[in-house]
Amino acid sequence: MDKTLDVLYANNEFKAKAFLDEIEGKNPLFICTIATTETGKISGISAAGKYPEFTDYTPPADAELLLLGKCKSIAGVPVTPDGIPTPALITMSALHLADIPVIVVSGGLKVKPQIPFLDLGGNPGRDIRTGNAVDNVEEVILRAKIAGENLAKAVDYLVIGESIPGGTTTALGVLSALGVKAEGKVSSSMPENPHSLKTETVKAGLAAAGESFGSLANNPVRAISCVGDPMMAAFSGLVIGAASQVPVLMAGGTQMSAVLALVNALNPDVLCNVAVGTTRWVANDKSSDLKGIVTQFCDVPILAADLNFGSSRFPGLQAYETGIVKEGVGAGGASIAAMAKLGGAVTKELLLKEIERNYALLMGLK
Amino acid sequence: MDKTLDVLYANNEFKAKAFLDEIEGKNPLFICTIATTETGKISGISAAGKYPEFTDYTPPADAELLLLGKCKSIAGVPVTPDGIPTPALITMSALHLADIPVIVVSGGLKVKPQIPFLDLGGNPGRDIRTGNAVDNVEEVILRAKIAGENLAKAVDYLVIGESIPGGTTTALGVLSALGVKAEGKVSSSMPENPHSLKTETVKAGLAAAGESFGSLANNPVRAISCVGDPMMAAFSGLVIGAASQVPVLMAGGTQMSAVLALVNALNPDVLCNVAVGTTRWVANDKSSDLKGIVTQFCDVPILAADLNFGSSRFPGLQAYETGIVKEGVGAGGASIAAMAKLGGAVTKELLLKEIERNYALLMGLK
Repeated sequence: MDKTLDVLYANNEFKAKAFLDEIEGKNPLFICTIATTETGKISGISAAGKYPEFTDYTPPADAELLLLGKCKSIAGVPVTPDGIPTPALITMSALHLADIPVIVVSGGLKVKPQIPFLDLGGNPGRDIRTGNAVDNVEEVILRAKIAGENLAKAVDYLVIGESIPGGTTTALGVLSALGVKAEGKVSSSMPENPHSLKTETVKAGLAAAGESFGSLANNPVRAISCVGDPMMAAFSGLVIGAASQVPVLMAGGTQMSAVLALVNALNPDVLCNVAVGTTRWVANDKSSDLKGIVTQFCDVPILAADLNFGSSRFPGLQAYETGIVKEGVGAGGASIAAMAKLGGAVTKELLLKEIERNYALLMGLK
Repeated sequence: MDKTLDVLYANNEFKAKAFLDEIEGKNPLFICTIATTETGKISGISAAGKYPEFTDYTPPADAELLLLGKCKSIAGVPVTPDGIPTPALITMSALHLADIPVIVVSGGLKVKPQIPFLDLGGNPGRDIRTGNAVDNVEEVILRAKIAGENLAKAVDYLVIGESIPGGTTTALGVLSALGVKAEGKVSSSMPENPHSLKTETVKAGLAAAGESFGSLANNPVRAISCVGDPMMAAFSGLVIGAASQVPVLMAGGTQMSAVLALVNALNPDVLCNVAVGTTRWVANDKSSDLKGIVTQFCDVPILAADLNFGSSRFPGLQAYETGIVKEGVGAGGASIAAMAKLGGAVTKELLLKEIERNYALLMGLK
């Protein structure tokens, strides 16, 4: 745990502390990488939407929330089937508190957001059980790399988050294809982590593609194409382009381990400039193991925002303490960046107050 | 003329000098705003393409040149019917010399560039003789404003350029609709400025829209919708969003007077943070009058990069001294920004050398 900031060290404490020291007081840009995939609509896979069909609207709505402070593509904000609000609410509150700018990047979307977004020429993803999930991966990585290079020149460092329903299943898919043991280790936005459903889905995808565990260790592009999602192409390209110049905080949960594995296979040199930023809910999750995945292939530090909604006056936020949602839309990384930018001025208590204020405003609560 | 930099003061010398002092040594972001319109295909209107039909490819190709150092949508680089190369060559050379990052923003395109670009939800423009040239203007302005606000938070200042064939004709259209006298005053990329053709085109557009000179002075959104182009919506929104926070150098020729008139009608307060950056070829042009348009409604300073290709060993570049092309893709503003970023280190001679090097490389010359 950091001495002055509400940030936990969840892997490689030495490097984690050095990374946090390096970004303290600096001006970041937050990039929200959004995409959709049919994988997210498999029944029981994702809680990122009230119904499976709504998952097409969750990423654009999350992105709108960050840029506009409200959604345009849907009424209210994205919620889980239990009515628990999107983690974009945390991200938005953190970014607003610290006045951190946002750019939205699309990896491939079925529904376009009603805000400015960076188009990389990608398409929405198919169900990974087809074994042919993502188009145009190499080109999207290339364009994302160019965007990352240019954005990195403009700012001190980047925080990159994602919103894609079904993302931990595609993460398991890509990790498996690359030969990283992640079965039973990826996180979930649902109260009960549906590990066996994810494993079955990935097995079906690898079989349909004629691939198996580890068979694509040297072909990360094909790993995404077969059993990944369009967010990964955009995200890994951004990291590769940016981290050669500035620090990059990869903001997310176990999905970040898949992006890390891809970057490690594509361009491992940049990993020295990378950290993962997540939430306490992911770092302490008993039903997943981010550190256990990451440490199989690299020593990238993991930081975790020490968020705690146990004292919230809203049941919808308290529910985060039961292990629902946990992370997403770069909530943990954005919180860390806000704390780091303004030093001790942004505490977890202040952040919760701002989140509650925005939640009440958006949901019409008092 | 500035004492240390190869920059001329072409309007409001006092403010021009203050603006240049303010940006010296600072880190800008260059935004290239691209769009296409059927107006650019009217025979004899534009030299921004070998044939009128090619003008759909010129903006994406210009943008690719800036980000990739080469074009992907076309072979070689965009040229005029006489084979004179695109001013994007100047922009690219200036930005590379000073390591200035680039973001491409689309106002509405028929052909999408094969690079990352910010989508604002705009469509390509129709022929202004229809009196119904641009869709969705208000929304594009709004989205551009949000993008401008966020990008401005990330950098010291913005340089915004454009690429849209036919842009001086739509500039005349919007200026006329807003009641600014610009007949015979807008610039041209052609050796002989086709003033009467532009005037006839604008008259037809205003008549078709049921409007007349000055009738839309209080309705800038409708002025763009009737007789403008999609670049203007994007550009004016970016300026409004960014200039409330940081200085903005509007990089271009007489088209910038139309964008200024729009910003002046939409949100005049931000103009105190704005300057126009152009080339000597525009500032000294006898067939147009940028200052004469701008000073009708504001005192925004005009800076001009003191470029001179008279000594170039390439006839294609020497031709710029005959008044062809003159400006475009933010060539003048990018040159000024490069000079300002690195102080005396980037002179007009060094810049010409870099332009010649890139020209030879791209055209396969020796």
